[in-house]
Amino acid sequence: MDDDSKHTSNAPQLQVPKAVVNRLSLYLRELQSLLRGGTETVSSTQLGKVLGFTDAQVRKDLTYFGQFGYPGIGYRCEELINEIKKILGTDRQWPVALVGVGNLGRALLGYRGFGDQGFQFVAAFDLEPEKIGESIDEIPVYGLDQLEEIIGQRSIKLAVMAVPAVSAQTVADRLVQAGIDGLLNFAPVTLSLPSTVSLVGVDLAIELEQLSFAVVKKEDKP
Amino acid sequence: MDDDSKHTSNAPQLQVPKAVVNRLSLYLRELQSLLRGGTETVSSTQLGKVLGFTDAQVRKDLTYFGQFGYPGIGYRCEELINEIKKILGTDRQWPVALVGVGNLGRALLGYRGFGDQGFQFVAAFDLEPEKIGESIDEIPVYGLDQLEEIIGQRSIKLAVMAVPAVSAQTVADRLVQAGIDGLLNFAPVTLSLPSTVSLVGVDLAIELEQLSFAVVKKEDKP
Repeated sequence: MDDDSKHTSNAPQLQVPKAVVNRLSLYLRELQSLLRGGTETVSSTQLGKVLGFTDAQVRKDLTYFGQFGYPGIGYRCEELINEIKKILGTDRQWPVALVGVGNLGRALLGYRGFGDQGFQFVAAFDLEPEKIGESIDEIPVYGLDQLEEIIGQRSIKLAVMAVPAVSAQTVADRLVQAGIDGLLNFAPVTLSLPSTVSLVGVDLAIELEQLSFAVVKKEDKP
Repeated sequence: MDDDSKHTSNAPQLQVPKAVVNRLSLYLRELQSLLRGGTETVSSTQLGKVLGFTDAQVRKDLTYFGQFGYPGIGYRCEELINEIKKILGTDRQWPVALVGVGNLGRALLGYRGFGDQGFQFVAAFDLEPEKIGESIDEIPVYGLDQLEEIIGQRSIKLAVMAVPAVSAQTVADRLVQAGIDGLLNFAPVTLSLPSTVSLVGVDLAIELEQLSFAVVKKEDKP
């Protein structure tokens, strides 16, 4: 038990920049892929290269959380995977609630990437009577009126919102009231929430705008 | 014509950090929302506040692209919207191709946020014979064997990939070969592409990991 927690508990975990946490996820994906391919150890140079980062960047990012490398060996993939999962909190299973069972909601319920990283949808909620009582990929769909009850019963801390923009703030308020600590919002709207609640907004058009920006810039070049 | 382009053409557009381009999209969303609500001008302080940025940050970000504010007035919402759209390349319509008509693909075809910002799916591609010939939200589904033909015919420069991880690299290579300049990838896999092609990867589990990280950190606090 002591051994298991030594790296992360010794390291100062305060004020880690968001971008670093994001890169931790990328390192984790790459390490998982390397391990599946039979690679047992990796250098910071190799790990950075696939992702387009320098070795110094990789080492600096990991230093926020502890010392993970071995001189002359580099990182042991399996060990570093376990450490990063512990840091990200994905060494456990997270029950997750989904609100909004439209096309996007259905796609999210079936999105395999979530389960692979320990996120399990256990309940979905919708307003439309014909959806309530249905099961999608074995996940039950409840009416919105049962939101507080089910979230409390199942001790759900994370929720994903795929509702229309116009109802997003109301639904978010109810989720927070029900005890949700982290909210992933797909509605293209800025939400106002207490600072104790973590909020990540996913606006898929923003990603496309990054691309159109890059393509336009390229076209502008002589 | 000269008037229309003066701000952006005078400004040095090189080496704009990715995060700045990302924030441009956020400013755009907020300005659009303000204008819909009847607000015609906004200060950098107001614009930053809703998004959690300082006024200095807002001004610095916009400085990359030109001078947009008026002393004593701030920014004119409609004008700044038009300028940012020009910078992001969303002052035009982009025909977009989708590859992979599974649950996620279907959700993306119906995702309203894309059309609102000028991204129009004009063709979808899939391998499964029963999907080919179908129309989803009036967007025709073609076989993968028509990929090069349709992309060339329609001069499509942007593509969205919602295919299984195992076929992602092959599909990406074909899209690049067919003339795609920007690729939005939902497959949870690292792609290797020529540097002339812009690539944005969307791994939705990464967003949830940001949340579990925050929730775990909160729980760890005494």
